[in-house]
Amino acid sequence: MAEYKAANPDKEIIRMDIGDVTQPLFPSVITAMHMAVDDLASGSTFHGYGPEQGYPFLREAIAEHDYRERGININPADIFVSDGAKSDLGNLGDIYSSGCKVAVMNPAYPVYVDDAIIDGRAGIQMLNGRWSNLIYLECDPSNGFLPMVPHEKADVIFLCFPNNPTGVSISKEDLTKWIDYAQRNGSIIIYDSAYEAFVRDDSMVRSIYEIDGAKEVAIEVRSFSKTAGFTGIRCGYTVIPRELKGTYADGSQISLNTLWNRRQTTKFNGASYIAQRGAAAIYTDEGQKEVKNITDYYLNNARLIRDSLANAGFMAFGGENSPYVWASLGNGMSSWELFEKLLKKYGFSSTPGSGFGSTGEGYIRLTGFNSRENTEKAMSRLSTR
Amino acid sequence: MAEYKAANPDKEIIRMDIGDVTQPLFPSVITAMHMAVDDLASGSTFHGYGPEQGYPFLREAIAEHDYRERGININPADIFVSDGAKSDLGNLGDIYSSGCKVAVMNPAYPVYVDDAIIDGRAGIQMLNGRWSNLIYLECDPSNGFLPMVPHEKADVIFLCFPNNPTGVSISKEDLTKWIDYAQRNGSIIIYDSAYEAFVRDDSMVRSIYEIDGAKEVAIEVRSFSKTAGFTGIRCGYTVIPRELKGTYADGSQISLNTLWNRRQTTKFNGASYIAQRGAAAIYTDEGQKEVKNITDYYLNNARLIRDSLANAGFMAFGGENSPYVWASLGNGMSSWELFEKLLKKYGFSSTPGSGFGSTGEGYIRLTGFNSRENTEKAMSRLSTR
Repeated sequence: MAEYKAANPDKEIIRMDIGDVTQPLFPSVITAMHMAVDDLASGSTFHGYGPEQGYPFLREAIAEHDYRERGININPADIFVSDGAKSDLGNLGDIYSSGCKVAVMNPAYPVYVDDAIIDGRAGIQMLNGRWSNLIYLECDPSNGFLPMVPHEKADVIFLCFPNNPTGVSISKEDLTKWIDYAQRNGSIIIYDSAYEAFVRDDSMVRSIYEIDGAKEVAIEVRSFSKTAGFTGIRCGYTVIPRELKGTYADGSQISLNTLWNRRQTTKFNGASYIAQRGAAAIYTDEGQKEVKNITDYYLNNARLIRDSLANAGFMAFGGENSPYVWASLGNGMSSWELFEKLLKKYGFSSTPGSGFGSTGEGYIRLTGFNSRENTEKAMSRLSTR
Repeated sequence: MAEYKAANPDKEIIRMDIGDVTQPLFPSVITAMHMAVDDLASGSTFHGYGPEQGYPFLREAIAEHDYRERGININPADIFVSDGAKSDLGNLGDIYSSGCKVAVMNPAYPVYVDDAIIDGRAGIQMLNGRWSNLIYLECDPSNGFLPMVPHEKADVIFLCFPNNPTGVSISKEDLTKWIDYAQRNGSIIIYDSAYEAFVRDDSMVRSIYEIDGAKEVAIEVRSFSKTAGFTGIRCGYTVIPRELKGTYADGSQISLNTLWNRRQTTKFNGASYIAQRGAAAIYTDEGQKEVKNITDYYLNNARLIRDSLANAGFMAFGGENSPYVWASLGNGMSSWELFEKLLKKYGFSSTPGSGFGSTGEGYIRLTGFNSRENTEKAMSRLSTR
């Protein structure tokens, strides 16, 4: 793209590939963080080392608003606040064996595969680009981008809904199949629900713990990044219920909550006090309204993208309950060819879907994270050029 | 201690065991963090995801002030900003083999041993409490708490100067022996210099890179926690020079900088923007004066503790170039007996040295982190009771 820009300095290219938020933080968070900074300026309110697991004020707010209010009982002691979901997704590899068989959706957020490679769980890369020890859960239009449970046994399964990159969300009924699979096979599901704040359809899942029996098989990883614009602040959390047990080679069992607590107290020293005060502000009445407003803003952009692409002859998915739109022309054009076409013909950028896995070939990902104005401008070009 | 307090509600116990800073953040950092929060409140100055390695403004300030000004040439690209030294010390275990033989000082900050246990490098715990695969580097009055290089080969060596818990610092000459050892044996030194800001004696080392050849064998881990009161803010950094190579089992070599960069870009998403802006303020003229003031404050407390203990008949070490004082009566009293004696007779708390390793038995650690007033009060009791 840099090449194209250099060769065409007069063309305005609109970024529709943005994977980061763009809108400023909202007032309740800003106010809370200014207050937190002031706390640190005075001896009587200074906060030094905090609990590695996070401050009770935040863990309790999470348990109350993200779970209890939605009919789910999560013990605040089972919530581990961190510097973000990417850290937790990677570091969780410290508490399961390097021999574990890992299943990942295809396409998927690339970090799941990269973590498995670094940890030595991926095996060797084969000629077709796949890794020999990974189980790939195929997601394509034939299954509505909802993978089927595998025939073989997976020890650890990464699921992400609403999904990055496809933008598809999952119903209780469909997720229940995974809980059943995990219970039958003694598998652990690592459920990435970084985009749950975008769910508007009540029949779609926001937390895996909405499903009966999930506490025995699932870890939930959450982030404030997209919920409230915390990509630069760094704060998220992971839930590991006491009920969830891992099994040693000799058949004995251990609480994964205990293992993770040990990992975090040894190799982590808590999230920033300022970030945690900011995160707690999200759970005030004002903060909850602001979360709704900002996620509505990005959702409206995503919906416009989806509709515009559909009108222009694309097969377009997601864009509802998700900031992501996943699209293809379904005519055999590769992801990079599509990328180039959109860039040159319509002047906006996208993310080639092949970067998310082999099944992403032929797709591009657009996001609702640009401004409304830029999104409208880019989409209007689809019909006028 | 909680028990003793409950049984003696009328006694005022002064905490001389504090391992955290107590004084508020200084004005330049507070101002910078307020500005950073305001940056996040406006679309034109908003910062989302930052570089996983840290912002250039901070990496360049570190290279300039912590290194170049002291005659050391460190490439900003070799500096990795993080959420703190404890995270880095633990996560560095991801880039060396689980078969590596690890050497730790005895006594030492417990995290080095705990990390080795979690990573499976410690072996089995023996009846004497030691771990079978660790090399213990003994530190006692006979060697001035400066360990001798081992006869056997260590792959990874954790050194910490100024030392926690003993408070002892190291000269260029003594540290050169370790560089020589590492070069002869192909070892890597992980040098924890979290307390370098307390060094006042120019003959003592602040950075391991003051020693010729250190770039080929040493990683330096630094923290803003004790330098500038960042224990609750979470920011530190690790230097991995390009020159430092690791060796695979087949004898081929790899830059550890490359491995760490891969680890951090996959399993980490950068330190908080607010924390990094606060850290950069430490390097302004005003910030540097404030660092000097606050570390002088804690150093004066530590010196008073050391002198008071010596006057009261203790063997007392450290307390110069370090906030820590390490003391023993040298009469066979155990660490816990000493702890109890100080608590009951003089009404102040300490940290039993046995918690830092078997060679810590018979010692207690006191720190200069309480206020001047409380430190004076506690120390005056040593002479008057």
